[in-house]
Amino acid sequence: MNLPVTAADVEVAAVAIAGQILRTPTTASRTLSEITGAEVFIKFENLQFTASYKERGALNKLLSLSGAERAAGVVACSAGNFAQAVAYHSRRLDISAMVVMPTQTPNNKVERTSVLGAQVVRYGPDVDASATHAAEIARTSGRVFLKPFDDAQVIAGQGTVALEMLDDAPDLDVLVVPVGGGGLLSGMAVAARERAPRTELVGVQSEVYPSMIAALSGSPPPLGGTTIAEGIAVREVGHLTARIVAELDIGLLTVTEAHIEEAIALYLEIEKVVAEGAGAAALAALLEHPQRFRGRRVGLVLSGGNIDLQLLASVIMRSLVRTGRLVTLRVGVTDAPGSLSKVTGIVGEQGGNILDVQHRRHILAVPSRVAQLDLTIEVANADVTNALIAKIRDAGFHVDVIQGGLA
Amino acid sequence: MNLPVTAADVEVAAVAIAGQILRTPTTASRTLSEITGAEVFIKFENLQFTASYKERGALNKLLSLSGAERAAGVVACSAGNFAQAVAYHSRRLDISAMVVMPTQTPNNKVERTSVLGAQVVRYGPDVDASATHAAEIARTSGRVFLKPFDDAQVIAGQGTVALEMLDDAPDLDVLVVPVGGGGLLSGMAVAARERAPRTELVGVQSEVYPSMIAALSGSPPPLGGTTIAEGIAVREVGHLTARIVAELDIGLLTVTEAHIEEAIALYLEIEKVVAEGAGAAALAALLEHPQRFRGRRVGLVLSGGNIDLQLLASVIMRSLVRTGRLVTLRVGVTDAPGSLSKVTGIVGEQGGNILDVQHRRHILAVPSRVAQLDLTIEVANADVTNALIAKIRDAGFHVDVIQGGLA
Repeated sequence: MNLPVTAADVEVAAVAIAGQILRTPTTASRTLSEITGAEVFIKFENLQFTASYKERGALNKLLSLSGAERAAGVVACSAGNFAQAVAYHSRRLDISAMVVMPTQTPNNKVERTSVLGAQVVRYGPDVDASATHAAEIARTSGRVFLKPFDDAQVIAGQGTVALEMLDDAPDLDVLVVPVGGGGLLSGMAVAARERAPRTELVGVQSEVYPSMIAALSGSPPPLGGTTIAEGIAVREVGHLTARIVAELDIGLLTVTEAHIEEAIALYLEIEKVVAEGAGAAALAALLEHPQRFRGRRVGLVLSGGNIDLQLLASVIMRSLVRTGRLVTLRVGVTDAPGSLSKVTGIVGEQGGNILDVQHRRHILAVPSRVAQLDLTIEVANADVTNALIAKIRDAGFHVDVIQGGLA
Repeated sequence: MNLPVTAADVEVAAVAIAGQILRTPTTASRTLSEITGAEVFIKFENLQFTASYKERGALNKLLSLSGAERAAGVVACSAGNFAQAVAYHSRRLDISAMVVMPTQTPNNKVERTSVLGAQVVRYGPDVDASATHAAEIARTSGRVFLKPFDDAQVIAGQGTVALEMLDDAPDLDVLVVPVGGGGLLSGMAVAARERAPRTELVGVQSEVYPSMIAALSGSPPPLGGTTIAEGIAVREVGHLTARIVAELDIGLLTVTEAHIEEAIALYLEIEKVVAEGAGAAALAALLEHPQRFRGRRVGLVLSGGNIDLQLLASVIMRSLVRTGRLVTLRVGVTDAPGSLSKVTGIVGEQGGNILDVQHRRHILAVPSRVAQLDLTIEVANADVTNALIAKIRDAGFHVDVIQGGLA
């Protein structure tokens, strides 16, 4: 094999970036092991300063530049973690950095990047357009264009994640790695095949963006769509990365949005850490394909933690609905004084905490003189919901579960 | 001084528990340093298996038991982190454990403790009543009664937190420590005074439960009340702990509920970790008393991460309101076709995401033929809110900010 990145390149990168990025821990999770049936180890790359592994590749690339290139500065295109990684390490190394972002990029992402010292240029309707503009800036200004994944130095830098995991958790049977453009997976694969040839590698893609799978099978790139894992929402994978993944014959899986959300909630509730959608993809793969990993020593890369608090709150609430801890009941109540009090009284007695009340008359779907009462209730678990529904029915009311009830 | 716990006791505890609890990291936080003006280091005790430092004291106590005591088993009273700590390490050491909890304890806390192997007994309306019952069980059954903080072995175990922090972040000017019963603070103080005599210690209490302050000044215990920091909601501190805190002349501060909530949100957003209310109290003290810590090297103990997801989601949403990222506007709209569409159209154009709509007629506070429209909107920041309000007013509508708007 004649790979564009070698294991030696990754070892060199590890020495180069040592002390300038966080040596993140890899720890065993007993509770996630019980839940998934595998022996689970987690690499916490969300603890990096800019909260993702992207710093490794960005820094390794910056360190590889010549004096003249450093003086000319760099330009990158990213609306996400790579932008922050480039901004942060360029400033540390006293290199001028410019980052092109699509015009629609949320203000907070722009701010986070410019606070770290990069000049942000907003251009174009999407990442493709702003990438073209970044390349144009590179041509006209002499700045070095930094590609987020399809670059040998970037790939070598990302590969250092594997070296640390294999040091901290020896004899792993499998490394499970989120895949967008493929930089992390291909770098880790190159390093792991040399260091631990019997350790399998599995790449995980969002089912909305199965781009590496498409690339390897010669299919056109996926159309894409809305996903909570925007960090791996990449339509076109890299040429170098795809070549490595193909040559090393690495397995790929897809995961659904629901499993990604569940993985984010588990990281919060069990591990007490924040994962972004892409960062939770490896755990999502364990939840979605348990038979593939059962009984094996599995190393998951929690690759990033940059998720908006709004989105995180929404993921939590949806998880509570999914696990039966938040339920919406529709109760038919007589349109007469006292009914609302009676129903809500039962909810309180059973330990339910009412979050929202909607009380409607003039609904043709229910008989005249009956009002429709929608209650959204927090409960400790689904048993409470069932007890609560039984009590309300015993009191003579009709109850439907609108959402969140478990049988 | 003749203290009930010595620095040597803490050193012995450190050796005893080594390898059986997680050696948690202490890391510098550049972003929290920028926000608070201090040089901030964080000890991540939320990463312990049961997500709090309580394991240290519980384990040290269990290891100090004689063979006969181990055979007789233990009984504790706790509805929180101490219960899980006792349950987990008792099972590890093959000691029978019973935990008494108040009857009103939420099911999930009972389940979490019994899953770890303890027999849970629900008894009494509050912790005082269940503590009395636990002591009674100890008398009649021969089980050893484990006190959560007022015990020399427990205090020595908790003190090991200070040794690790001083090893990992030398030359700290201050250690900031949450205080409930005082076990963590007194143990850390004993150890730190010996190892680093110039390092100041500061204890932090919820303003709802300033129990150590009351005890040291000879005042009656506080009445207490509702607090998000239930882990330090203790009315009666320990005798041993109060003696140590008094003799070592340790400073105490209180923090408001609002600052504790803000600290939880910052831990999530900046550090990507989950802190419970009590666990975030030390950071809350930096936010509330910045002048006290400015420019100094400050070590914060993030003491625990056990917070219900429901509560966490609520803290996030409240933080978004506080920081201007979630706003509720009340708009007076003509009660005629097209008005709702016009207003919501402006919100969308300005990048606001509508979460909730309430449209009311028959409100006497507004003129006849005008309906009251309440919109709850997600925005990137307060600038968007201001732009949005201006545009709606330009279109001829009256707008009031109900909550979440910043000037």
